[in-house]
Formats: sequence, C-alpha cells, structure tokens
Amino acid sequence: MTAPPDQTVATLANGPGSTESTRLGLTAPLRLDCGVEFSDFPVAYQTYGALNADKSNAVLICHALSGDQYVGDTHPDTGKPGWWSLMVGPGKLLDSNRYFIICVNILGGCMGTIGPKEINSDTGKPWGLDFPVITVADMVRAQALLLDHLEIEQLFCVIGGSMGGMQVLEWAALYPERVRTAVPIAAAPYHSAQNIAFHEVGRQAIMADPDWRGGNYLSEGTNPNRGLAIARMVAHITYLSEPALHNKFGRRLQDRDAVTFGFDADFQVESYLRHQGSTFVDRFDANSYLYITRAMDYFDLAERYGGVLAEAFLGCETRFCVISFTSDWLYPTSESRRIVHALNAAAANVSFAEIESDKGHDAFLLEEPEFWSVLSGFLNGAREHFGLDFGNGD
Amino acid sequence: MTAPPDQTVATLANGPGSTESTRLGLTAPLRLDCGVEFSDFPVAYQTYGALNADKSNAVLICHALSGDQYVGDTHPDTGKPGWWSLMVGPGKLLDSNRYFIICVNILGGCMGTIGPKEINSDTGKPWGLDFPVITVADMVRAQALLLDHLEIEQLFCVIGGSMGGMQVLEWAALYPERVRTAVPIAAAPYHSAQNIAFHEVGRQAIMADPDWRGGNYLSEGTNPNRGLAIARMVAHITYLSEPALHNKFGRRLQDRDAVTFGFDADFQVESYLRHQGSTFVDRFDANSYLYITRAMDYFDLAERYGGVLAEAFLGCETRFCVISFTSDWLYPTSESRRIVHALNAAAANVSFAEIESDKGHDAFLLEEPEFWSVLSGFLNGAREHFGLDFGNGD
Repeated sequence: MTAPPDQTVATLANGPGSTESTRLGLTAPLRLDCGVEFSDFPVAYQTYGALNADKSNAVLICHALSGDQYVGDTHPDTGKPGWWSLMVGPGKLLDSNRYFIICVNILGGCMGTIGPKEINSDTGKPWGLDFPVITVADMVRAQALLLDHLEIEQLFCVIGGSMGGMQVLEWAALYPERVRTAVPIAAAPYHSAQNIAFHEVGRQAIMADPDWRGGNYLSEGTNPNRGLAIARMVAHITYLSEPALHNKFGRRLQDRDAVTFGFDADFQVESYLRHQGSTFVDRFDANSYLYITRAMDYFDLAERYGGVLAEAFLGCETRFCVISFTSDWLYPTSESRRIVHALNAAAANVSFAEIESDKGHDAFLLEEPEFWSVLSGFLNGAREHFGLDFGNGD
Repeated sequence: MTAPPDQTVATLANGPGSTESTRLGLTAPLRLDCGVEFSDFPVAYQTYGALNADKSNAVLICHALSGDQYVGDTHPDTGKPGWWSLMVGPGKLLDSNRYFIICVNILGGCMGTIGPKEINSDTGKPWGLDFPVITVADMVRAQALLLDHLEIEQLFCVIGGSMGGMQVLEWAALYPERVRTAVPIAAAPYHSAQNIAFHEVGRQAIMADPDWRGGNYLSEGTNPNRGLAIARMVAHITYLSEPALHNKFGRRLQDRDAVTFGFDADFQVESYLRHQGSTFVDRFDANSYLYITRAMDYFDLAERYGGVLAEAFLGCETRFCVISFTSDWLYPTSESRRIVHALNAAAANVSFAEIESDKGHDAFLLEEPEFWSVLSGFLNGAREHFGLDFGNGD
C-alpha cells in the first residue's frame, strides 16, 4: 500500500469552505415521491475551491445519515473538523485547489435545508411529523435543482459513502447525462431486512421517549435526547466491525481495576457508546433521524425499473468506481457486487475495488491508504480520459 | 442430513413436566462473586422423567438470557410450548423416558428463582436495584446447591445454548467431577466488546424509560414496557442472521401493496420486531434483563485462571461436545474454536462440530437435523463409553 499521489503535496492547511444557503423551487415546485410539492424552500450547502471557466471541475459530495454539508471545514456546532476533512481540502485527495467541491445538506436534514425542524410557513411552527416522508431520489432531485441554480450542467464526479453512495446511484439513474464519474462507496442498491430492522429499533427508541411529544418537541420546549442517544448507540455498533471493537476496546475497563458489580460503564466500550450517544444529540434533530432512516429503508433502486437493477443504468455513459470494505457488515461487499453486476449487465464502464480493512462500515471516513490510492487512480484516469486539466500538477 | 436416530421413535405426545420450587442456602449461605451472601432463597425448576436407581441419568439443561425452566412443557404465562420442546420430552432427543431432565430458572431470573422481582425479606419490597449483581458462576453455584438438595452427585450431561453454554463451561470449570458430559452450544468463553455493546444499548433503553422509576417500578405500579421492548428488539436482530432475515422477510410489505410514506410498520420485518418486543414484556422482568445481561458481560472464564483458558479445564475428565453454527455472528464459530483449543491444550476429551445453517444464533432452538444428529451421536457414544443403559432401546 502506497500513499495516494495527491497526498504527497498535502502540506497546505485545510482552507475554509464557503457557507451558502439559497431557496429553490421558485419557478417550479419540487414534486416529491410521496406526491407533496415543495415551493420556495431552503437548501444549505458548502463549497470549497472555485468553479473553472468551462465548469468542468465540479464535484458533488453526498453525505450519509448523520453527516452534513460541513465535509471539509469546522462544524459550526461542534467545533470539530468536517466529517471528511481527511479527504477534502487544498492538496487533499479531493483537492479544493483543483475541484469546485459542493456538499449539500440533504432534504430532511437539520443543518439548514428544509426538514422537520424548519418552520412550516403554513403554520409558523416547525414541521415536525407534518413534514412529508422523503426518499433518496427526492434528495437527489433537490441537489439537481441546486446545480441548476449554480448553473452547473455536469458534474465531474458525484461521490459518497453509505447513504451518500445511494444518492450517487440515484444520480446516475436519474441524471446520467449530468454525471461524468460516480463513486458509490460502502453502499447498497437497496436496504436489506437487517438494515431496516436496526433503523426501526432506533426510531422506536426515539418515539418511546416521552420528550419526543409525538414529534412536537420543538414547539413544546423539550428534546428526546435519551431516545436519540439510544438510536445513535445501536447504529454506531453497526458502523464498526467486531475486530475493530475488539482492537479498540476488547474487554478493557474504564478507569478502574475491577468490575464494580453495578450498571455503571465498567467497560470502555460502554463508556465510548454512551459518549457517542450523548454528543450526537447536541448536533442532530430527532425527527430528522426518523425521516432520513425512513428514506434509506425505502431505498430500492431496482423497484422503479421493474425489479431489474441494470435497467436503472441502461445507456449510461458515466464511469463508475464502486468501492466496498471487507469488514463492512452493514453494507457488505456482496451488495457492492450487486451494483457492479447490474452495471456490467447495462454495459456501463465500471471498476470495482474491495478494500481490505478491519474498520467496518466507517472505513470510508477513516485513513485507508489503499482506498485513497484506488480513488486517486480512478479520478486521475477519468481526468485523462476526458482530457481535463484542473491545474495543480496535472 | 438424516433425521437423528432418537427422533424416529418420537410419536408420543410431549409429557407434562413437574413444576418444583425449593429454598436453598438453609445450612450454609451461597456466597456470590460480588461478596453478598444469600441464605434461605427460592429456586424454581422443572423436571421431566424420573431419576434412575443409581442416579446416573440426570441431565441439566441451562437456559439462555430470555429462557426459563419451562424447557419442555407449556409456559404458564404465555401458553406456548417450552422453548426447547423440539428437543425435550418423551421420545425426543433429550428423552424424558430415558433421562431425568432438570431445568432451573437462573439466579437473577424472573420465574420463581431469587431475582430483582422477588421480595427482599429485609424490606418486604421487591429487590429492584438492591439485588446484587450476579455472575454466570453464581448461577452455576446455585444449580449445584439444587443438585445437592436433590441428592444428585453427578450429571450425565449438562447442556445449554448461548448463555446456557456459558453455564456449561462454568460447570466443567467449577465442578468437573460432577459432569460426565458437557455440551456448550453457540457459546463463547467470554463476552466480546460487540456483545457488551449490544447489551449496553438494551440496558440504556430500559433505564431511559420513565416507567422504570430507577428500578422501583414494581413498588410504584408501573412497568418499563417500551424500554424493555426496545431492548428485546435490538437483541432479537442479533439472534438472526442476515440471510435468515432476508429469507423470512426481505423487503416484503406488511398487509399493504405500497409503502405508506409514514412511520407505520410498512415492512414485515418491522411488524415482526415490534411483535417480538411487545410479547416479551408480558413474560419478562426488566430488571432481570439488566442483571442477566450484566452477568453475561462479566463472563470471561479465563480471567479466574490468570487469563489462560486451558487452566480452567486442567485435569477435567468430562467429555465435551462443542457445537457452533456457521451463520451465528453473535457467538461465531471462532469463539467455539477458542473453547476447543483450550480443551485440547488441557488434554480434555472434546469433539467439535460447526453446523452449516443460515438461521443464525437462534439455530440451536430450531429444527436443525445435522445439529440433532451430532448431539444424538455424542450422547449415544458417551452412554456406551460409560457403560450406561437408561432403557428405551439402549
């Protein structure tokens, strides 16, 4: 495993992103899969770098369930680095000196884009459970409206992990002519029964919290912190592999020499999980969690195409790079292979890499030199193929 | 795969068990690992069949986290068949015409043995969180006291799955001379970080329920049904394999033709999980759930032996049959292999079978002809080895 080429020049500090918000659906409404129409609705996004003259260097990063648009710079609420700051910034693999990088808070999110926590102009109160159930395709349609607004016809690349990878697949299915390259990472073409089951537990934990108040907690001045923390805890277990948990914590005790014969966090893994739960509630909205998990559960790309996944990609000229991780049991390699088989059956251009990693599903967020090397090679090859020169050593 | 030999004669109806309860710790107290002593405490158990003249036909079945002593006959609360009624009864593999079968409600349980829901004679109120934290070894020590009470010196077999298998290992470690054969099924020599993590989520869900009342819900006339149901839901996912969930439910909808764009149980798997949660609370005590999961988390057999598992079995003349299932990701085959390696290192007599099954951890409860065949062969061989004849065709 060698360091990805782009990383060798990564000596610059991570530059600040540009925080943007706009209103979409002004000329025509966005019609959702459920039938509801959104007009004049807010979308928040970050950009990094500058759009070049021929608008050929735009890269759209799609975020996952608990992500947001702060992909490469400090999160305003937590003060922590962006969720993919290892990857995004000047001199990084997704180099903001080279690309114009866009990351949009998804529809249903809680960082400025329309979602259950935003004010419903019809009532003057937060949407809460009156917010319509959205789908991954709806998220992508909203992103396409934003690209229209930015007057960007075509993306050099759309990339994302987990639910971000589902959006990537929807992009290629809905707007193939707008996507030159597509990189779905640690993703799946549909949500499995086990995936749905884990989400349902999280939703039940939120809705069982009396502070959830039937979804009206914002109006009633409460917050279902305990329910949301439990939802996060169970989800977090699924993001890590058993070996990762073993290596990171094993059965080591938390600041004590022996078990206490009680229900305190004796074990480091308990303390860690509780911390994951309690910090999550500071930055995330419980109703958003319900809506986004529901969108993922509803995701089954083939369904729109008579159950034949390949039909989603027929005639698609996008170049795909599908990436999975060996220890990801949430979206295992077998699901990525399903995507690859469908792309092959549709005669699409696809490369596939299963990365050896013991870090589980979250590997896509972490330092994984082999993953970075594969991605860097794919993007370099695609630039060459399309005869593009974005500067910075190309 | 052939039907196990003992099954071919299984034409008799399942006979009723004998419901028994006794008080133990009368002459000397039971000293728990935490240091607390129990005197004059209740233990509830079921027996099936009759003890033979030389008391050589006793089989102890150890139950798992959510099990109880009703292993072979109707559960008094639910009216459902015993949890291992496929296995236990006249003419069954664990044949009550042949064996004297005992199944004891574990220490900390909620079906008659001392546990957090029983009355603390010091206060006249349910123990609640004043109940001491117990260990798997404590459960086994209590079972040994019961055998003393029954005047049974030696067991022909001690057998159990999951936490039942942990008890089997403790039996062989603590009382090797009392155990002729030991069958730990779908078990592990310690609880892993991932195992602890899932349990911690369940406990947090229970303790987050305002009806838990700091553990005093019985005195206060409430019941943390929602928290306990969520704990059961998340645990239940871990008992099934992904293929089992896929085959059983996939993405099939529950009594509807299309998704409802809401948070109702659109998917069969959601409906199933909700049902698992809501029925569990009718038969299980939330505090018992806390204590038993804690006992499992604390389980690390090697710890008492300086971290060397083999030391637990040195000089042990018990014959072991270790069984695992290929699709069990909660207590995977690698954990059973650890047990087998330690037994080999201790020069113990051990046979090992990994059963091909897609049913996950719960496979040990279900119809698995290969499993039954292995177990039947092992028990037949052991009877022959020990020169035992329990009748019924031997």
